[in-house]
Amino acid sequence: MTTAVETTLAHFNAWTGGDFEEALRHVSPDVVCDTPNGTLTGPEAYRGFMGPFAASLRSSKLLAAFGDDHQALIMYDAETALVADAPGAELHTVRDGLITSIKIIFDRQPFVEARRS
Amino acid sequence: MTTAVETTLAHFNAWTGGDFEEALRHVSPDVVCDTPNGTLTGPEAYRGFMGPFAASLRSSKLLAAFGDDHQALIMYDAETALVADAPGAELHTVRDGLITSIKIIFDRQPFVEARRS
Repeated sequence: MTTAVETTLAHFNAWTGGDFEEALRHVSPDVVCDTPNGTLTGPEAYRGFMGPFAASLRSSKLLAAFGDDHQALIMYDAETALVADAPGAELHTVRDGLITSIKIIFDRQPFVEARRS
Repeated sequence: MTTAVETTLAHFNAWTGGDFEEALRHVSPDVVCDTPNGTLTGPEAYRGFMGPFAASLRSSKLLAAFGDDHQALIMYDAETALVADAPGAELHTVRDGLITSIKIIFDRQPFVEARRS
């Protein structure tokens, strides 16, 4: 049986490695994603939110990953085409090897500023 | 010996409980704090950054706390006087019971918007 952290890292390694479809394989059909822009439900809504970010990724670095039977918490640095310093933190609930909830925290401010200029 | 998570939670419980001076007791004189606004060095710089946020806190809820011998990673919800939904994530390095580095992620956008209006 894979642990929650293993599932989360398989997901993380996939989307940061450029394979968003593989990342989605670890996401439950019932996923609920709590983002700075609001709450999203289902993999397609998740794809619409996270896909463009993943596609714009230039590099990433996992800073820490911890968890227990049903939760995983990670923090990472990310460089995107729009924003050079775009770190994130994600708390996942994992059931039966699938991510059922995601709470993601990142700073929208540099993205707003970059789009404005 | 206290674990990294125990030190981090003692710090978290102090500042979210309104006792910022007690929170500072868990912070190293050499602390380096990586924030969305830049890197801060030393407890006084940390106080200048985190103190006003702590003072404006209306409620908070720890969502997860994990760690190992030298790291602790937490995520929390926070409600402040300025912003109702202000969650944060913090990665701490802990040495000899003191927090020596903090990387904090939160969304500055709602704070910018609240100050503008």
